[in-house]
Amino acid sequence: MGVRVDSVSAVQTRRVVVIVPAAGSGERLGAGMPKALALLAGEPLLVHAVRSLVADPRIGLVVLATPDGLEESMAELAAAHAGAAPVVAIAGGATRAESVSRALAVVPDDFDVVLVHDAARCLVPAQVVGAVIDAVLAGAQAVVPGAPVVDTIREVEDSGGSHTLDRAALRAVQTPQGFPLAVLRRAHARGDAAATDDAGMVEALGLPVVLVPGHARAFKVTTAQDLVLAEAILAGEAELAGEAEL
Amino acid sequence: MGVRVDSVSAVQTRRVVVIVPAAGSGERLGAGMPKALALLAGEPLLVHAVRSLVADPRIGLVVLATPDGLEESMAELAAAHAGAAPVVAIAGGATRAESVSRALAVVPDDFDVVLVHDAARCLVPAQVVGAVIDAVLAGAQAVVPGAPVVDTIREVEDSGGSHTLDRAALRAVQTPQGFPLAVLRRAHARGDAAATDDAGMVEALGLPVVLVPGHARAFKVTTAQDLVLAEAILAGEAELAGEAEL
Repeated sequence: MGVRVDSVSAVQTRRVVVIVPAAGSGERLGAGMPKALALLAGEPLLVHAVRSLVADPRIGLVVLATPDGLEESMAELAAAHAGAAPVVAIAGGATRAESVSRALAVVPDDFDVVLVHDAARCLVPAQVVGAVIDAVLAGAQAVVPGAPVVDTIREVEDSGGSHTLDRAALRAVQTPQGFPLAVLRRAHARGDAAATDDAGMVEALGLPVVLVPGHARAFKVTTAQDLVLAEAILAGEAELAGEAEL
Repeated sequence: MGVRVDSVSAVQTRRVVVIVPAAGSGERLGAGMPKALALLAGEPLLVHAVRSLVADPRIGLVVLATPDGLEESMAELAAAHAGAAPVVAIAGGATRAESVSRALAVVPDDFDVVLVHDAARCLVPAQVVGAVIDAVLAGAQAVVPGAPVVDTIREVEDSGGSHTLDRAALRAVQTPQGFPLAVLRRAHARGDAAATDDAGMVEALGLPVVLVPGHARAFKVTTAQDLVLAEAILAGEAELAGEAEL
């Protein structure tokens, strides 16, 4: 299984564990490899994602759910960029929810907060990660970053018609999503086939979901066009950094 | 006003007029100029947008709503890239809806179909434009391109809580939106302050809105990050075209 939980013992001061479901096949990306290993500016999405997450020093453990057989290699890859945070990996399940459930099973009980973060949201800014952790530590049962929705959204009706939703009330949900560890465990033990994310599963328990501001950089790399955008963002930053050095 | 409707008389075989609201200030883009004039690969967004639209030969007139005082110059700029379609321009209003209303006022009655297209959706593919026109000519009262929604969408409640919407039923609305000319005139004559787009105004008349497939390239350039994406898409195409010539 590639689990290396033995290295986790000394991290009690780091109260946050982050689960990264990274078992996706990457079919829509068309890169011919697991999506988390697709290259962005020469490095796998997974490396960018882990680096973005551990920028918050409260993160004391990273648990990856990987394609079957890639546990060891992806854990090693992530660990090289995870700073002081240890990395463990387990084989993911057939669905994202199953991958998170399996990851939860290896998380030691002494963590207070669990984040779940899409590897494909690899450029999430540190302030988003920090805001989610802050809100859980302040008592929220479920926290999601929500970004304003730019497009008008229509809802298709069973009749085949459609109607416009009130855009001002809509938020595009990003990750990391954050929860007290015990709450997310309870949600996954109960399960909810209709939920599309972890916050939805916690919502099914009847608990409120708190929104914190998301960020455009936390967008999900799904298509080749998204990868182009991510490359362009990083290239733009490199250019700015170069100018600053002059 | 820069209106040049006199040149429109001979276009009865081209049954479609397209209104392009391009009076926006471009504040969110940060380019320090009207958004439609922001440069993308060396050319204004407006030029890209007009070129994308007139790729459909049924478009017989382009009506621009521009910032006050820029009617003549923006009409000339657009006309240079509008092929056989004449271009007229009027000063836009304080809102997008007002700009469209003013543009409708100068459209000759002999057009059957009116499209309304955001200049900022400057890379809309020809098949999207064509599908919207086809659906209106086939009898639809309102047609919008709708793209699948990638993110989970939550709706914020008055109570401060939020709940997840069924993503499979959601579509991100793009443009061009298409209507029989008389229907859009009726919708604007009535007005609906709550509507966020023209389809919403027609919906307020009690008419059904038909969705046709949208496209990722029809995304709206709103932020500097969006401009980076658009540049990258065009650069990728130039590279592919270059390879094809080898």
